[in-house]
This record gives sequence, structure tokens and C-alpha cells, in this order.
Amino acid sequence: MEEKLTQEQVLQMLADRKIAALREELSRLEGADVAELLQELPEEALARVYRILPKETAAEAFAEMSSDTQEQLIRSFTDRELHDVLQEMYVDDTVDMIEEMPASVARRILAQSTPENRRDINELLKYASDSAGGTMTTEYMRLRADMTVEQAFAVIRRDAYDKESVYTCYVTDDNRHLIGVIDVKTLLLSDKDARIADLMEPDVIYVTTSADREEVAHLFEKYNFIAIPVTDAEKRLVGIITFDDAMDVIHEENEEDFAKMAAMAPSDTPYLKTSVFALWKNRIPWLLLLMVTATFTGMIISSFESALAVNLALSAFIPMLMDTGGNSGSQASVTVIRGLSLGEIGWRDVPRVLWKELRVSILCGLTLSVVTFVKLLTLDRWLMGPDVTVAVAFSVALTLLVTVCCAKLIGCSLPILAKKLGFDPAVMASPFITTVVDAVSLLVYFSIAKAILGI
Amino acid sequence: MEEKLTQEQVLQMLADRKIAALREELSRLEGADVAELLQELPEEALARVYRILPKETAAEAFAEMSSDTQEQLIRSFTDRELHDVLQEMYVDDTVDMIEEMPASVARRILAQSTPENRRDINELLKYASDSAGGTMTTEYMRLRADMTVEQAFAVIRRDAYDKESVYTCYVTDDNRHLIGVIDVKTLLLSDKDARIADLMEPDVIYVTTSADREEVAHLFEKYNFIAIPVTDAEKRLVGIITFDDAMDVIHEENEEDFAKMAAMAPSDTPYLKTSVFALWKNRIPWLLLLMVTATFTGMIISSFESALAVNLALSAFIPMLMDTGGNSGSQASVTVIRGLSLGEIGWRDVPRVLWKELRVSILCGLTLSVVTFVKLLTLDRWLMGPDVTVAVAFSVALTLLVTVCCAKLIGCSLPILAKKLGFDPAVMASPFITTVVDAVSLLVYFSIAKAILGI
Repeated sequence: MEEKLTQEQVLQMLADRKIAALREELSRLEGADVAELLQELPEEALARVYRILPKETAAEAFAEMSSDTQEQLIRSFTDRELHDVLQEMYVDDTVDMIEEMPASVARRILAQSTPENRRDINELLKYASDSAGGTMTTEYMRLRADMTVEQAFAVIRRDAYDKESVYTCYVTDDNRHLIGVIDVKTLLLSDKDARIADLMEPDVIYVTTSADREEVAHLFEKYNFIAIPVTDAEKRLVGIITFDDAMDVIHEENEEDFAKMAAMAPSDTPYLKTSVFALWKNRIPWLLLLMVTATFTGMIISSFESALAVNLALSAFIPMLMDTGGNSGSQASVTVIRGLSLGEIGWRDVPRVLWKELRVSILCGLTLSVVTFVKLLTLDRWLMGPDVTVAVAFSVALTLLVTVCCAKLIGCSLPILAKKLGFDPAVMASPFITTVVDAVSLLVYFSIAKAILGI
Repeated sequence: MEEKLTQEQVLQMLADRKIAALREELSRLEGADVAELLQELPEEALARVYRILPKETAAEAFAEMSSDTQEQLIRSFTDRELHDVLQEMYVDDTVDMIEEMPASVARRILAQSTPENRRDINELLKYASDSAGGTMTTEYMRLRADMTVEQAFAVIRRDAYDKESVYTCYVTDDNRHLIGVIDVKTLLLSDKDARIADLMEPDVIYVTTSADREEVAHLFEKYNFIAIPVTDAEKRLVGIITFDDAMDVIHEENEEDFAKMAAMAPSDTPYLKTSVFALWKNRIPWLLLLMVTATFTGMIISSFESALAVNLALSAFIPMLMDTGGNSGSQASVTVIRGLSLGEIGWRDVPRVLWKELRVSILCGLTLSVVTFVKLLTLDRWLMGPDVTVAVAFSVALTLLVTVCCAKLIGCSLPILAKKLGFDPAVMASPFITTVVDAVSLLVYFSIAKAILGI
């Protein structure tokens, strides 16, 4: 791809008053690129450059900007300018924007929308933002079953301009009930006098407004649709969700899961643009919580102080046991969390999951135990001296086997339990599992050591 | 949505010889659903049910099946049947399938393809599977700039049937150089005598065959395109990548990252279908490696045995220090790994990242230290007795501060370093960072304790 226009070049052209050239350069870019470029500009240059943009590029770029930049621009707009931008924007983008704005700005946006758009916006604002209703747009292409292909194309030509997606058309009856779906490709390949009723696909995959937006997004991964229709409880068509919105949902949900698995609050802002204070705020609650819960681990160790005093070599293996337990647990929990998130695992699968993890953990535990037993009596004995007796090695190896089994069973069951109780399974990931498994592995270790070493 | 056909119902209908009804039921499903259903069937029923399917449903379902099921079916096909299925499949799906098949089956597939498809398949097999070339399809809609809209529609109607995506058409010159792009929506809204040259967008976003497929997938998230054209080094159009393939790439790359972050080898197979042995094989290498590297942590502890013997309370805080260090490090590493993966962070950002993490780590470290100092002198002293002196509390608190800073700096720099050296940054996630941070936190702890407590 060609070299991109940089922020410095834009500012230089602005300073040199090369306005026509700048307009020409900017109009050649995609909306997303213009948005990226403008967001980097100093505040006073932002509104100036924005006014240079051709109308269509301006609207495209505006829809792609962060809500902070949008707010800055709206505050600099006249009512007329705001009205023009809103005219060009798709309703679902407008709703997403309104949800991020302070009340006063939101009211101004509603006031400057056309009556028809205002009705659609208010309609969409009613739905929860993580539901299909809160993700859909009301601008879709609707046909009737008794139309001919030629009539259908006439409707598409008439209405296409302000529809987000025209390539999949929905067929409804007089009561707006969804009765079929037809692609523009099929229309193009059909005779112009053919009836839509004979060409359409009557078995439509659809979702209702209350469906979870993540589940809807996974339907796109499964079926490769450009859009999925959304209906109310009576199967009346009320909107569509397009593949690009589904991609956004998948992106957001994945980043949320990644953040939670690393014990952080999720954030929409790219890392380099997040302030130090915001990062601190996202990270410190979990660190504090996990630090405080580690008190239990400390109590377990200090209650076995006497055992540790008798054989100091025992403490050398605490980190290894805790880490291996934690890693085994995370493997199981992350596998199950992803399975839940992708809809591959459900509550009914609990017995299968437990049985599978039990067998895997015994295999993993045995492998690790044998390797560790040999390693302790050779390498570690050589490194740490005669304190590492056969009895110590056996205690450590046996602890590993039991710990790995416990860790994997805890790791696979907690996320499913969390989901059943209505929590997000992703918070049951590595850091949380590690804390639980730490306590378990120490209890197992000291109990086994006491029994075998007789201390 | 309506109730789905179950495996039991299919087998029952087959047993009752209700073949016509079964065919009718199956033809109403999407290809992906038929594939899901057929994959669950016992082997002998699979081929029987497959032969009942209407031709188009059969081909759609076949493309969606796992490679194991595809192989089973191909082995039961006559040459004629194989030929028919291949006729209906898109070339990129065929290539993906061939890559998973044993050589004998792959040769049979090539032998039963049409000469034209065989040429395309061999062309696509040349590219690395993680490149744009290895992801694209050669079946796209190509127009010439001197055509009218009417002529363009004639071409689309003629060629649309076996093109994966017809809604974005690419304009090339006589040497196949990509000179523009035009949407079917634009064509529909334009006068039938208008020239493509006047309507097309000449600034095309494109990628070359060698581009990384993950970077291409992120272009879809950014621009909301239905397809992106792929050119050779001379900007000659050779293929397109469609949004559904981009979604698959994003899905695979995310699941790979999740697996690596939990110290597992990635797997394409859904969890419940993965064998116990395969799960063991994916998990054991990292567990073993991390267990063996924990030897260092053990050595550090045993070399400070004498210090631990003097004040046994010191060992009670080892798990808390290690876990908090590990969690702090994971937070930084996962944030940076995602930033790298989404292209938000690059090598040139290292100073900014380090500076940001340093400030965040000081804020986090100070908060944790203060809380821990107070907690040690109140709760822990009450729980563990007078061994928890002010000096011990101060040592622990100071260790926390230093450990959190080291952990965050290690956590943010190792993934960037890994990427620079050509490794996958995701392997530098939680488990690996934890092991490194364990050793660091213990060294810091014992050094500080020795200095402050004079032991």
C-alpha cells in the first residue's frame, strides 16, 4: 500500500494554506483513516481540518472517531452542521454515539435529527446495549413476496442510498412478519418477471431483540452471513445486525476476556492512549483482592512452621508445587472458559468435562511426578545436599500428583459454576484459580509430608 | 428460532425409511447446521444420509465439515460423486481441505477437479497458509474501466454463479493491474449508460500475497469491507479475501493466543471432541518446562535457608509476594501482547511503554505496600504472633514495591522483545512471566530481609 498522509504533513499543509490540495489528499482516504488522522491533531486544528472534508468523507470519518473526538467536534458544530452530519450517519452508529455523550450533547443530537430518525433512535435506545436489539440498525431492505424481480430492483434502487446493507433483502407480510430472505445475487441471476415468493428462502435464521449480542456474533462465524434479521417476540421484523457490527462485538468480547483473565478491568481505549491513572484503576482492585486472599496461604505455611523447621529442604519446593498447580489449573479453566464463551460447553456437559479433566490430570500428574521424583534425587540432591531424602522426594512427587488433579478439577468446574450463578466465567481464570490452588497445594503438601516424614 | 432436527430424529427417520421426509427436513437447514448434524452420526449412517441431501445443500455442508468427516466421505465417494462435490465448492475451501488430507486423498481430489480448478488449486497451494495468498480465493468479479453499468451487470450475471463474493467488483487494466473498485450498490444506483471508469473508486485498499493474514484480518475490523483484493508484487490482481475468511482468521488467532497464555499448545478441535491423550499432549510440555525452571526458585530459597531458620514468619509471606508479583507481571504482559497482536504497539513504542508501565507500577506498588504494611502489623500479627515485627512488615512492604515494579517492567518488555526476535509474543504470557518474576521476587525479598533484619 502507498505511504500514508501523516499528522505533520496535514499541519504543514494547513499552515501553508494549501487547502484545496489537503482536501484532495483527504478525500482519497477511507473514513477510518481520516478518523485516525484527525484524532491525533491538536484541538484547534481538528475542527478546521474537519470543515475542509468533502461531505461524505466527513460523515464516514465522524462515525469512526472515538467518542471524545466526536464530542469535541459536536461542541464546535453549528446546529446546521450537526444536522447535516446526522443525516449522513446510520441510525445504529448515532445510537452508539448518543450512549457515550453527556446528557446535554445527547439532547442536542436528538433535537437536530429528522423526526423519522428521532423515532428510530428512541426505539433503539430502549434495548440493552448487550442485546441484539441494542446492536441492530433499523435501516434494512424490505420486499414483499408478491413483487417481481424487476419491482424488487426498483425498490432497492429507490431505497438503497440510506440503507446500511442492501445485499440481503427481507420479505415480510402485511403485518411485518418475517417470511423469507433473498440475496441480491439471487435477484441478479433470476428472470426479471420471476416472483420473489418463488425465489426467496423461507427458512430464515433470525434472532429476537432480547438475544445476547455475543451469541448473535457467533452465528455470523458459523453461517458467514452478511446480515442477520432481528424480530420482536411475535416474529415481526424490527431490524438487522450486519457482519461489521458482529466483528466489533467479537473484538470487544475477546478483549474483555483477555483483560479479565489477566485480572484487569476491561478497557475500550488502546493501551498507548490510556492514562497511567486509568491503568492503575483497572489493575489495582484485583491485585489488592488477590493479595489479601493470599493471607490464607500464609496462615497455612505458618501453621506448619514446626514441620518446616525440621526439614528446611521442604520449603525449597513450595514455589514449584504452587506454580505447577496454578499452571495446571489455568490450563483447565481457560479451556473451559473459551468453550463456554464459544457456546461449545454448557451446564449439561459438567459430568463429561469433569471425567475428561480427571483423566487428563492423572496423565499429567503421573508424568510430572515421575520426572520430579527422578530430578529431586539426582539434580536437586546434588544442588541442595542430603536433606533431599527419598522420603522428601516421594512426598513432593505424591503432592504433585494430588495437586495437579485437584487443580484441574477446580479449574474446570469453577468457570461453569460461575456461569450457572450468573457471573462472568472469565473472572475465574488464571489469577483466581492460582490463589485457590495455592492453598490446596500447600495443605496437600504439608499433610503428605507430615504423614510420610512423621513430623 | 425453531427447534432443531436432532441426531436421534435423523436416525429414526432413516430406520423408518422416511427418506423423502428426511430429505425435505435437511434441505431446510443451513449448510453449517447439516454439517454439525452429520458429523455426530455413526460412520455407516453418514454416507447414507449424505447421499439423500439435495446437491446444493450437500456441497455447502461438505465445505463446513471437519477434515476427518470430509476424509471419511471422500473415501466412500465414487469418482463421479467426488467430481460433483468439487464442482460446487469454492477453490479456497478446496485448498484448505487438501492441506489437511493424506497425500493419496489429495491426489484423488486433484485428479477429479476440472483442469481450470486444478490450475487455481496448484496456484493457491504455493502460498504459505498464514499469508494473504494462502487465505485468498481466486474467484472474484473483475470488470474493465471502459464498460458501461449495463455491460457490467451483464458480466456479473454471466459470472456470478461460481464467485464467492459478487458485491464488490474489481477493475483491472489489460495487464490485470488493479486500478479501481466498485460496489454493486453503486452500480445499482447509477445510470445504465454511465462508465465504470467514472464511478469506480481509484484509491483501492489492497494487500499483497505475502502479507500476514492476521494483519489483513484487522483491516476488515477497521474498514468494514466485504472483501479485500490481493495483488502480486507488481500490483496485478490475483485474488480476494472475503470477510468470512477474515472472521475465521481472527477466531483462530484469538484461540491460539488464549491457549498460549494458559501455557497450552493451540488446538482447532472443540474441547469436548478432543481426546484425553491429545489434551495431555497439548498441556504437558509447558508444565514440564515450567516445573523444571522452578528449580531456580528452589535454589534461591535453599541458599537462604539460614535466614529463614532465624525468622520463620518470613516464609509465610513468600506465596503472597510471588503471586502478587506474578499477577502484576501478567497484567502488563497480557496488555502488551494484545496491543502487539492488534497492531497498536510496535518496536518504536518501547520507550513509551516502559515509561508508562514504570509509573503504573509505582502507583500499584505503593498502594499494595501501604495496605500490606498495615495488614501485617494488625491482622497478620494477630494471626501469626509476635514474629511479625515492624522490621518484617517493612521488609515485606518494600519487597512488594520493588517486585511489582520489576514484574511490570519485565512483563511489558519480554513480549516486545520476543516479537522483535521473531517469536510469538503470546508465549511470554502469564505462566512464563510468573516463573521469571518468582525468582526475581525471592531474590529481592531475601536481599532486603537480610539488609533490614541483619540476618
